[in-house]
Amino acid sequence: MSVDLSARKKSELDSQLDLLVLRYEKVRNRSLEICKPLAIEDYLIQPMDDASPPKWHLAHTSWFFETFLLKPYVKVYKPFDDAYEFLFNSYYNGVGAQFPRSKRGNLSRPTVEEIKSYRDYVDQHMLDLFSSEVLEDQNALFRIVLGLHHEQQHQELMLTDIKYNFGNNPLYPVYKQAAAPSSSIGAVELNFHAVSGGNFEIGHNSPTVSSFVFDNESPRHTVYLGDFKIANRLVTNGEFLEFVRAGGYEDSNLWLADAWSLFSSIDGYNKPLYWQNKDGDWYEYTLSGLRPLDLNQPVVHVSGYEADAFARWSGARLPTEAEWEVAAGGTEDQANFYESGLLHPAASVGGQSQFYGDAWEWTSSSYGPYPGFEAFPGQLGEYNGKFMANQLALRGGSCVTSQDHIRRSYRNFFYPKDRWQFSGIRLAKN
Amino acid sequence: MSVDLSARKKSELDSQLDLLVLRYEKVRNRSLEICKPLAIEDYLIQPMDDASPPKWHLAHTSWFFETFLLKPYVKVYKPFDDAYEFLFNSYYNGVGAQFPRSKRGNLSRPTVEEIKSYRDYVDQHMLDLFSSEVLEDQNALFRIVLGLHHEQQHQELMLTDIKYNFGNNPLYPVYKQAAAPSSSIGAVELNFHAVSGGNFEIGHNSPTVSSFVFDNESPRHTVYLGDFKIANRLVTNGEFLEFVRAGGYEDSNLWLADAWSLFSSIDGYNKPLYWQNKDGDWYEYTLSGLRPLDLNQPVVHVSGYEADAFARWSGARLPTEAEWEVAAGGTEDQANFYESGLLHPAASVGGQSQFYGDAWEWTSSSYGPYPGFEAFPGQLGEYNGKFMANQLALRGGSCVTSQDHIRRSYRNFFYPKDRWQFSGIRLAKN
Amino acid sequence: MSVDLSARKKSELDSQLDLLVLRYEKVRNRSLEICKPLAIEDYLIQPMDDASPPKWHLAHTSWFFETFLLKPYVKVYKPFDDAYEFLFNSYYNGVGAQFPRSKRGNLSRPTVEEIKSYRDYVDQHMLDLFSSEVLEDQNALFRIVLGLHHEQQHQELMLTDIKYNFGNNPLYPVYKQAAAPSSSIGAVELNFHAVSGGNFEIGHNSPTVSSFVFDNESPRHTVYLGDFKIANRLVTNGEFLEFVRAGGYEDSNLWLADAWSLFSSIDGYNKPLYWQNKDGDWYEYTLSGLRPLDLNQPVVHVSGYEADAFARWSGARLPTEAEWEVAAGGTEDQANFYESGLLHPAASVGGQSQFYGDAWEWTSSSYGPYPGFEAFPGQLGEYNGKFMANQLALRGGSCVTSQDHIRRSYRNFFYPKDRWQFSGIRLAKN
Amino acid sequence: MSVDLSARKKSELDSQLDLLVLRYEKVRNRSLEICKPLAIEDYLIQPMDDASPPKWHLAHTSWFFETFLLKPYVKVYKPFDDAYEFLFNSYYNGVGAQFPRSKRGNLSRPTVEEIKSYRDYVDQHMLDLFSSEVLEDQNALFRIVLGLHHEQQHQELMLTDIKYNFGNNPLYPVYKQAAAPSSSIGAVELNFHAVSGGNFEIGHNSPTVSSFVFDNESPRHTVYLGDFKIANRLVTNGEFLEFVRAGGYEDSNLWLADAWSLFSSIDGYNKPLYWQNKDGDWYEYTLSGLRPLDLNQPVVHVSGYEADAFARWSGARLPTEAEWEVAAGGTEDQANFYESGLLHPAASVGGQSQFYGDAWEWTSSSYGPYPGFEAFPGQLGEYNGKFMANQLALRGGSCVTSQDHIRRSYRNFFYPKDRWQFSGIRLAKN
Repeated sequence: MSVDLSARKKSELDSQLDLLVLRYEKVRNRSLEICKPLAIEDYLIQPMDDASPPKWHLAHTSWFFETFLLKPYVKVYKPFDDAYEFLFNSYYNGVGAQFPRSKRGNLSRPTVEEIKSYRDYVDQHMLDLFSSEVLEDQNALFRIVLGLHHEQQHQELMLTDIKYNFGNNPLYPVYKQAAAPSSSIGAVELNFHAVSGGNFEIGHNSPTVSSFVFDNESPRHTVYLGDFKIANRLVTNGEFLEFVRAGGYEDSNLWLADAWSLFSSIDGYNKPLYWQNKDGDWYEYTLSGLRPLDLNQPVVHVSGYEADAFARWSGARLPTEAEWEVAAGGTEDQANFYESGLLHPAASVGGQSQFYGDAWEWTSSSYGPYPGFEAFPGQLGEYNGKFMANQLALRGGSCVTSQDHIRRSYRNFFYPKDRWQFSGIRLAKN
Repeated sequence: MSVDLSARKKSELDSQLDLLVLRYEKVRNRSLEICKPLAIEDYLIQPMDDASPPKWHLAHTSWFFETFLLKPYVKVYKPFDDAYEFLFNSYYNGVGAQFPRSKRGNLSRPTVEEIKSYRDYVDQHMLDLFSSEVLEDQNALFRIVLGLHHEQQHQELMLTDIKYNFGNNPLYPVYKQAAAPSSSIGAVELNFHAVSGGNFEIGHNSPTVSSFVFDNESPRHTVYLGDFKIANRLVTNGEFLEFVRAGGYEDSNLWLADAWSLFSSIDGYNKPLYWQNKDGDWYEYTLSGLRPLDLNQPVVHVSGYEADAFARWSGARLPTEAEWEVAAGGTEDQANFYESGLLHPAASVGGQSQFYGDAWEWTSSSYGPYPGFEAFPGQLGEYNGKFMANQLALRGGSCVTSQDHIRRSYRNFFYPKDRWQFSGIRLAKN
Repeated sequence: MSVDLSARKKSELDSQLDLLVLRYEKVRNRSLEICKPLAIEDYLIQPMDDASPPKWHLAHTSWFFETFLLKPYVKVYKPFDDAYEFLFNSYYNGVGAQFPRSKRGNLSRPTVEEIKSYRDYVDQHMLDLFSSEVLEDQNALFRIVLGLHHEQQHQELMLTDIKYNFGNNPLYPVYKQAAAPSSSIGAVELNFHAVSGGNFEIGHNSPTVSSFVFDNESPRHTVYLGDFKIANRLVTNGEFLEFVRAGGYEDSNLWLADAWSLFSSIDGYNKPLYWQNKDGDWYEYTLSGLRPLDLNQPVVHVSGYEADAFARWSGARLPTEAEWEVAAGGTEDQANFYESGLLHPAASVGGQSQFYGDAWEWTSSSYGPYPGFEAFPGQLGEYNGKFMANQLALRGGSCVTSQDHIRRSYRNFFYPKDRWQFSGIRLAKN
Repeated sequence: MSVDLSARKKSELDSQLDLLVLRYEKVRNRSLEICKPLAIEDYLIQPMDDASPPKWHLAHTSWFFETFLLKPYVKVYKPFDDAYEFLFNSYYNGVGAQFPRSKRGNLSRPTVEEIKSYRDYVDQHMLDLFSSEVLEDQNALFRIVLGLHHEQQHQELMLTDIKYNFGNNPLYPVYKQAAAPSSSIGAVELNFHAVSGGNFEIGHNSPTVSSFVFDNESPRHTVYLGDFKIANRLVTNGEFLEFVRAGGYEDSNLWLADAWSLFSSIDGYNKPLYWQNKDGDWYEYTLSGLRPLDLNQPVVHVSGYEADAFARWSGARLPTEAEWEVAAGGTEDQANFYESGLLHPAASVGGQSQFYGDAWEWTSSSYGPYPGFEAFPGQLGEYNGKFMANQLALRGGSCVTSQDHIRRSYRNFFYPKDRWQFSGIRLAKN
């Protein structure tokens, strides 16, 4: 079942609430849409701890609504299954103990069908809640909006996790045969825009229902930046291939010490995650299967360490997140997000700046609290704040991000070693 | 599809070959029968390295016939999928590289349906082979018989792996609702039979098509045994519970040093694998779900270390495998094998000796070569011989062993730490 | 042998060079002075990878002068032992391969006596170099100054490593019986100074011989800070004990996620590294042995994670390194450095601000490059730059830092999990 | 101080007791003699968990007398240091908790000098005990004899551990410049003696003071052996080099599965532990330093896995321990034990059978209890029995075994993966 508003007259959808219901419907359905190409078996596996089974994502996003809305706000609500509170809690210690993350792929039950019933059950009760007086409570309303953004984050993770699952199967299954992004013309030439230094405002005011942001994007605050230059587009596969061919992976001078010692223990760490060399020809695993490496497309699935080493080799550096935010301007409508259907970064053949979509951009900034940061209240305070250590900020969204999920102030974060996200490189200079 | 002999007239089935075909049909169908209660998701998971996904078992047993019969003996044979040679090779270095064992659960593809098609394809070609002149080759015939015994071994593994998969799921799914073995009368009293020492013959002559044994059971040879006594039945849950209650798990004097240091690093290692204590009451996970612990049933899913410690605590010891073989006599028809449908050891209420069926019996004997041992020739030499280190011999089969698979001379082997098999305890004394 | 200038007339020591020689003598001798209380056995051990044997420190600091001065600048120089280039290279890939860090404690040879001969040999050749024309080369001069600061860093590490070595020995040896810092009066009350926000200059201009800084302190640059408040002294043992007693270590809400998952795997992670509770009384291992915990002394040997959790529990936060640098002012002459002989933080009974000495202060700032950062040229570029990932900046020096080694702009860095340094806590607020 | 009997008149040494005192003196002094070539630093290190620092051996062997004789039998005995009970307990859970084995090398204190004082103190009290009525107690007498055999075992371990310590130091220190065993003539040709099968008695009667054996050698019992052949000498370096050159380490067919998977994770596992290949020439680290590989000397420092693979490659097998004991005959006076001073196996140039001395001989027999085995009573029951799992029996002693320590029935045991003992290969055949 997909969420269905047929019981409501479409003409009534003029209020904010109705728009919210529409948005609820759209977001929830997209999770199922993403899973459509999957065989039952594909919902289940977890080849590494960082990735979760698609089935788990489907359940956890429903758990979120059940835990933070239905249980606290609907007095008569009866949980679909009491065991799910434990099974599908991701990391909320305030809610209770969690089934171990690394073992999510060990659970054949509940089945996919049962999880889909769980989703239906939660949706049904959420739709009831939409027509209740609960929604006069701004906290509840905010939690719904948050739940939808939460689900959009997991939609991106589902796609990156599915890619990891398939990309590590020797059969290299095709998730979806998308059009190969055309790049016959060649990407625009790389050059740098100069930005004059000074005091800038970055970040966003406190989140509200009508102007949603995550707590980590707030408060808006002043930073001082010196003069800097920033690249007009992302680094391409062709440019990264030069680095590979020049022995970049073997030159310890280019690498942070933590990276160098990490790689020495990993076999074959000498190219981006999904690149393959077969008899001298380069290929890349994509959600459309193995394809010849397109030299004009942005390089993607590199770690922060690789991004840093490449930048050093280029005589450049990564931008800070403040520099990125100042330079990026507003979201571009034409950006290559999930909606493009490509599910892969596209070459900047028309001079697209690629600040948004295509690939998350590693910054040199450690992911930390903005001055005056305050976490969401209560259990939801665990959402973002407790991860503010050892990770780097990434900006701009990717080709598997939903367009209405991203913002100029949006901060994503991963460990510098991580490579399974659609993460790429934009260069900066002093 | 299941194997179907409808094209053959039943009246013709009087030759040895026909019986072999019948046996082929029966064995191959049982693998599918075992999987019948599974949801698609249940075919896929691998919560520990030692267990394999049921799907993998289904494929590997077919790979065995494809690799050791169809490829070498059928000139025109075209493999179902070239990648399977690598994906479903278990450990035959002579055949080629293997997909890593610990990652079998990471492969969502091929799907269960594709694996079933693979089985059909192999079966079809095997049936063709049955009507060819190939079967005049005794080597080929022997490989068929070996392949069937191989599949029977994996049928037992499928059941123990399914039990492990389900038993580690907090939902404790029921595999099959079997009748609970009745034991209201109480198990027969434990006592010991005396056996006078001397020279004995154990083991089996070299395997032939008509008198199949594994290479590791051969040759038949003389051993000297002193006088010994051996218990009239397996150790029960009730007897093992006394050990638990007496603090057996906390008394280092009872344990081998390797066991003691291993357990100290494992949380909750203080009871058999599937026992649970809820508010003072004991339960046991079975293939029929969680059940109150039946004190008269044999204790099962103990490691060799636990068997050894229990025996020491009892003032007894484990038998050697030679003692076991001398004492066991021939297979008992009434033994509790897979065919009983219980899928769980039954209490010896009628005085059954339980030498066969119910639970594999740990011996104190290291699994090694018999004097004059010769491995199967060629690639199949890797079948048993290379595992003759660090493991203990177990004897007698279990409640999930097929009745026509077991023999007096049959040697099973597991590491003394292993617990996921239906392994139990028989005591011996000097 | 200690470095001896007796051959030179003291009256001649008026030039910069003579002062440098004097400084060389002083610094080199201090390394030996620190080792004086050690038995031969104490020079050798390495109970954890992060700590190095004192013997190794003595050798490596000499290796530094040999590698970066004697070998490149003295044509006729003959190395003391060719194997030392490999054995005592810490992490300079540009120089060559390194003996594995974690195995430094496995080398009984060269002996302590041989290492001391090595030091003498290097010192002798360095003194020759001091009277050669080499010193007209500013690069060479700079490397000498750098080598001395390098040795001072290792002197502090020798003391922290000795403390770790002794503090993990059940006999709790006394390194040196220092006077217990008196604190009968009680530490001054904790309060916060307000600092008005705006643009500030932090960092230091490029290093020169006469104005030495490390490359990571440069360049001097502008930052914008909002209004903030900063504590008048370090957090005391008494204050931290309240956190312990209030269950701070058990409250997941107070901890960063990486900290929480790390601690769950470490037994007894519920107090600062060297605290002990015996029958309800608290003790602390110090370089003077086990002592009753002095509640007025600063808490020390806490990780960045513990500092962060304590600050959160206190309703405060850690300062950024820019805030620290703005607030700290210049070095205080009266600070408790190595020269005080206490080898332990002292209570702020007279209202000392404790910005310098006593304990390194964790900041919330990730250790990264300043805008426009340039690493030292050549092989020495590996000195600081390649560690700019995953670590936090600490400021102000400790009770085991040499007084003339520290500066307002000085940046130390450790992983947030590290605890074996003299690291403490200063609170800040918005 | 060494043990000195000067206070006793030598003429009185006619009683068994006096001989025991003499033996006590001799054994205790040998431990110190073995350490004489060591620098203080060499007493301390522990490059792998299995090896212990020489200092620890010196202390533990004294601890044994203190724990099992002085404490229980001397009412007024005051321990040298109460902490030593914990620090120098090897593995006796019955005595109490133990300082972790893998951390023995982390303890710089007590110093070597303190340990030597501890030895003196224990010796002094033991000599007092020798003149007391305690020795009328056969249990006490037996414990003294056991303590001496215990110390002899540790003397061998000291030498193998020192060899490991030095052999893993890139400087390859010489322990003692012994004469290189001459082998210019070439080892005698390899051939096999036939032994007719039948029932044999092996093992030894229960231990007594005057006829000491370890509990694991007892009881004497009957075994049946088939006909077998056994080699006239140990396998030589030259023969093993052929195996290496023939690609033996790369041929999976030759290896047990556990060996094959273990080696694949260990870099450079393609030759015996102390062999080195420099530019095509072979060297071997010995206690006399690096020497060119002598092709006529027995190969040594191979694991049980390597011994097994070599035997398989040779078309032979390892003997069982019963076969070995039957074939070995009595101890040979001329065997190459510790007393020869060579500290290395010598070539069988004169046709020596090498059953005793030179190198421990791997057998194919799992180390387990003999039928009717009874462990030493009380705490000493932990001496041997609890290790009867996962190890193989080795026989015959080595070039670092004391001559009066070994017997025909003597059973040594190590894991099949272990290589740091002087372990070699004797072939057998059916």
